[in-house]
Amino acid sequence: MYRTNTCGELRIKNVGQKVTLTGWVQRTRKMGGMTFVDLRDRYGITQLVFNNETNAELCDRANKLGREYVIQIEGLVSERFSKNDKMPTGEIEILADTLNVLNESLTPPFTIEDNTDGGDDLRMKYRYLDIRRDAVRKNLELRHKMTLEVRRYLDSLGFLEVETPALIGSTPEGARDFIVPSRMNPGQFYALPQSPQTLKQLLMVGGVDRYFQIVKCFRDEDLRADRQPEFTQIDCEMSFVEQDDIINTFEGMAKYLFKTVRGVELGNKPFLRLPWIEAMKRFGSDKPDMRFGMEFVELMDVLKGSGEFSVFNDAEYIGGICVPGCADYTRKQLDELTNFVKSPQIGAKGLVYAKVNENGTIKSSVDKFYSVDVLQKLQEAMGANPNDLILILSGLNAMKTRKQLCELRLLMGERLGLRDHNKFALLWVVDFPMFEWSEEEQRLMAMHHPFTSPKPSDIALLDTAPEKVCADAYDMVCNGIEVGGGSIRIYDAKLQAKIFEVLGFTPEKAQEQFGFLINAFKYGAPPHGGLAYGLDRWVSIFAGLDSIRDCIAFPKNNSGRDVMLDAPTAVDPKQLDELFIKLDLKQK
Amino acid sequence: MYRTNTCGELRIKNVGQKVTLTGWVQRTRKMGGMTFVDLRDRYGITQLVFNNETNAELCDRANKLGREYVIQIEGLVSERFSKNDKMPTGEIEILADTLNVLNESLTPPFTIEDNTDGGDDLRMKYRYLDIRRDAVRKNLELRHKMTLEVRRYLDSLGFLEVETPALIGSTPEGARDFIVPSRMNPGQFYALPQSPQTLKQLLMVGGVDRYFQIVKCFRDEDLRADRQPEFTQIDCEMSFVEQDDIINTFEGMAKYLFKTVRGVELGNKPFLRLPWIEAMKRFGSDKPDMRFGMEFVELMDVLKGSGEFSVFNDAEYIGGICVPGCADYTRKQLDELTNFVKSPQIGAKGLVYAKVNENGTIKSSVDKFYSVDVLQKLQEAMGANPNDLILILSGLNAMKTRKQLCELRLLMGERLGLRDHNKFALLWVVDFPMFEWSEEEQRLMAMHHPFTSPKPSDIALLDTAPEKVCADAYDMVCNGIEVGGGSIRIYDAKLQAKIFEVLGFTPEKAQEQFGFLINAFKYGAPPHGGLAYGLDRWVSIFAGLDSIRDCIAFPKNNSGRDVMLDAPTAVDPKQLDELFIKLDLKQK
Repeated sequence: MYRTNTCGELRIKNVGQKVTLTGWVQRTRKMGGMTFVDLRDRYGITQLVFNNETNAELCDRANKLGREYVIQIEGLVSERFSKNDKMPTGEIEILADTLNVLNESLTPPFTIEDNTDGGDDLRMKYRYLDIRRDAVRKNLELRHKMTLEVRRYLDSLGFLEVETPALIGSTPEGARDFIVPSRMNPGQFYALPQSPQTLKQLLMVGGVDRYFQIVKCFRDEDLRADRQPEFTQIDCEMSFVEQDDIINTFEGMAKYLFKTVRGVELGNKPFLRLPWIEAMKRFGSDKPDMRFGMEFVELMDVLKGSGEFSVFNDAEYIGGICVPGCADYTRKQLDELTNFVKSPQIGAKGLVYAKVNENGTIKSSVDKFYSVDVLQKLQEAMGANPNDLILILSGLNAMKTRKQLCELRLLMGERLGLRDHNKFALLWVVDFPMFEWSEEEQRLMAMHHPFTSPKPSDIALLDTAPEKVCADAYDMVCNGIEVGGGSIRIYDAKLQAKIFEVLGFTPEKAQEQFGFLINAFKYGAPPHGGLAYGLDRWVSIFAGLDSIRDCIAFPKNNSGRDVMLDAPTAVDPKQLDELFIKLDLKQK
Repeated sequence: MYRTNTCGELRIKNVGQKVTLTGWVQRTRKMGGMTFVDLRDRYGITQLVFNNETNAELCDRANKLGREYVIQIEGLVSERFSKNDKMPTGEIEILADTLNVLNESLTPPFTIEDNTDGGDDLRMKYRYLDIRRDAVRKNLELRHKMTLEVRRYLDSLGFLEVETPALIGSTPEGARDFIVPSRMNPGQFYALPQSPQTLKQLLMVGGVDRYFQIVKCFRDEDLRADRQPEFTQIDCEMSFVEQDDIINTFEGMAKYLFKTVRGVELGNKPFLRLPWIEAMKRFGSDKPDMRFGMEFVELMDVLKGSGEFSVFNDAEYIGGICVPGCADYTRKQLDELTNFVKSPQIGAKGLVYAKVNENGTIKSSVDKFYSVDVLQKLQEAMGANPNDLILILSGLNAMKTRKQLCELRLLMGERLGLRDHNKFALLWVVDFPMFEWSEEEQRLMAMHHPFTSPKPSDIALLDTAPEKVCADAYDMVCNGIEVGGGSIRIYDAKLQAKIFEVLGFTPEKAQEQFGFLINAFKYGAPPHGGLAYGLDRWVSIFAGLDSIRDCIAFPKNNSGRDVMLDAPTAVDPKQLDELFIKLDLKQK
């Protein structure tokens, strides 16, 4: 080994030891005939001292060290005169006897500090330098610890990690597949899995009973701010279980991970299980952020038809939130909120407010349309106190309006500092609708996927009112983010056929697309269900980050490019020949 | 839960308990007014009893159960009259009160038994049924345990598991890449990694210090019997280390895995470290099977020029093995061996034998060319005893002939039962040549890869005799199989440039192909090295299997097809349009 110790481990008890250290030069400074070098590696920083009086030649060489040079030194661990209690090695320093430059470095394009001067693009291009920064490396360490603890927990419950193939077949349902031309099967393509959904169900048919896998998945979708074309799932499935069994098992895992990886005790109380429809009505979202209140109050009874305001009188939905202590919002601040809700990504028509003054009177933007009595009723309905600000949205489509109000609620929570990265609010959203109407395809689509089981009590509705059928599907939500989701699967061939019928599949089309699974289910499929967590997302929550990007060693940018590797690239025409394809750039 | 217990856990101490079990019907049989059902799940088999006298209706329904039906029963754990000590649950049976058929099954296309009547093709098509067999499921359990223990061991040494991307750039060096068209970057392609080699080196530049990953890798090569287009590596890299550090670390891991996963104690003695040239001379292979002897004896001194046999007189190499106790081989058996070595996959011109008779005399196929004295010297050189059979190959190319003799040695070892699946011989092969001559490309090629470091003592030879340069490269070999291999990497930019020069790369070409790595190395690359193990191969050794296929849940056949999923497939022309490619089947 090039070293006897790392840069993070020497303490006052090591004083007097001869050691050899290696690492990167963080900084050098001269002071009173001495040269001090901060030597850094993954484990920490240790101060080196070169003495100009006792060894001028060595000190001279130390003075010439550049940032990020890789060096090896021998020296004596000594107690510092001026100790630094901010760093674990701050009580000692190394009096260096030798200095060996293992490698030089060009001046790095940004500083290797927690608060770097490098912008996002530069950091991504030189990601190998970015990773030297504590802030990024710690996320990789967190990710390592998290996957280790997931495996430990699931192994203790008898789950088997089974690797499923990465080269599978393409299915038209779901998101767009990445495809891979097959050289040995001309004209045919593999697809990279969007998830191992059908494969894990085949493992259940195979009697594996409890399966999991931490697995790369792929979706060729346009990348929004926080999506990656390749992402990692903690994918799980169990046999002979009902919804409660899965919820209990994975709630246990969440609590275990919060405790062992994040050091947070979530307690023994079960997580809230919120029916989807209630989540929509109270928070306008199937992933409500429950770190704070400001729940929706429906105001149709209070405001519709009780005054001359035609917007409300025409509305299918009127709802408000009560923002505590914000009655002092200025005209400008209120205009800002109005512009926010009217922005294209939110799409509301306008915002109505009502301030509850110190003295209990109300000042609202719709004063002229409503009597004092109605405004009083509004205040009562909202449970608003003096100094509170009531914000109201209305619209012709209840669900759309709720989603708009949700965005406003989140913004106000953010402004009031209620969305604390160190506070965690976990819950299950359950009883999702089985189907949703697709305007584009003019048919019902599976909200989850076509193998999700309807609630047994709702099966009769499949014939009469399929849109009312709820599914045995569940999402785990943390701080307004869906961290995982799953369902009980159909294992009865007749029920599966019925679902395909409701989805508008002919039996032939169902067979063509999912034949391998439908056939497998003829050979004794057990009752089963499961769920999948998004690993990148979960690590980012633990890391207190808004983006998943810094929880991934080598992420891609919004055009799906790896700017460090400069991939994807053009390939040799010979490669395409071998694959029986050619470029067709005419539409470009 | 559908069950209170699994089919593997009930024992005599549970007698008197009311239980609910679920599982698959392994078999049913009627005997003396009773119906017995063997109920199977992943954990074992439990016998159920249905009594025709006490509940004729229930018993009647039990009689109608088909193989592989999925059922749920309630009943009382009872002591058996006739115990079966071959199964863990053999002392008890369940007196069934209820029977609930959860799912029916068609008659499976092969028997779900350790010795199934299903052929390979049928088993692969219905792999989900094949996995229900103990023999296959146990391999998946072994694989799960192996990866868990690898992670446990490496975590305990401070290694971080870091996920590297699956969508990277294509590099012309090495095997053929699988490529993935990019929709967002028209005309460009990702490649699936053949290994994360360059990425893990970038992590070392990034100061990760100790990295590992259990990771899918991809090679689009023609599939020989035991290769898969996607396979799994245990990929590792360390900084600030020399060859000995890596060998010690991963020898420790091998011993740990043998102990914890396979229950085999390999002892404290270090593995043999055999220089490549010695491995070639003694075994004709860089992955010698050292479970048995029969080492090569070079016979040039003894046989070349000492008789009238022109084949030997013209040879560049003559070598023999001494097969103990096989002097009684018949003419027919010897002809068989001759045909074996002359077969196209071996390619020898012929086989010479010499039998040492009971009385010490020698009978050889080249008697007429050599004096008794020379044959005596042959016997001495070979250390042959009475009843031994000496087998000799010769050729104009020493290395080629040694490889042929290696195949013969392995065959004889197999015939003598010396290649025992329960015996393990591990060693390191070290000091590999840095380069090998490519007849096809008429240039030196990197034997390992272009980032492998030459031995420091051999660097001077790079200018004068590059073909003589040895590398700091090492393979771990178990039972004649390379289970892993790696090297110390170059971290000095000038040395790297020199190696590219020897490989015939212009600086421009080197920059074009490996620019991202060469540039990264300008910013303080630490000394580093690593290795990668083949997980599939290693699991197959632990499982005592010759093929890796049954250690993989869903393997592909020799045409790269998944016959269960029926992938790859044709895709919708719209998908190709979006990717800016079209089919070009003219050459098909």
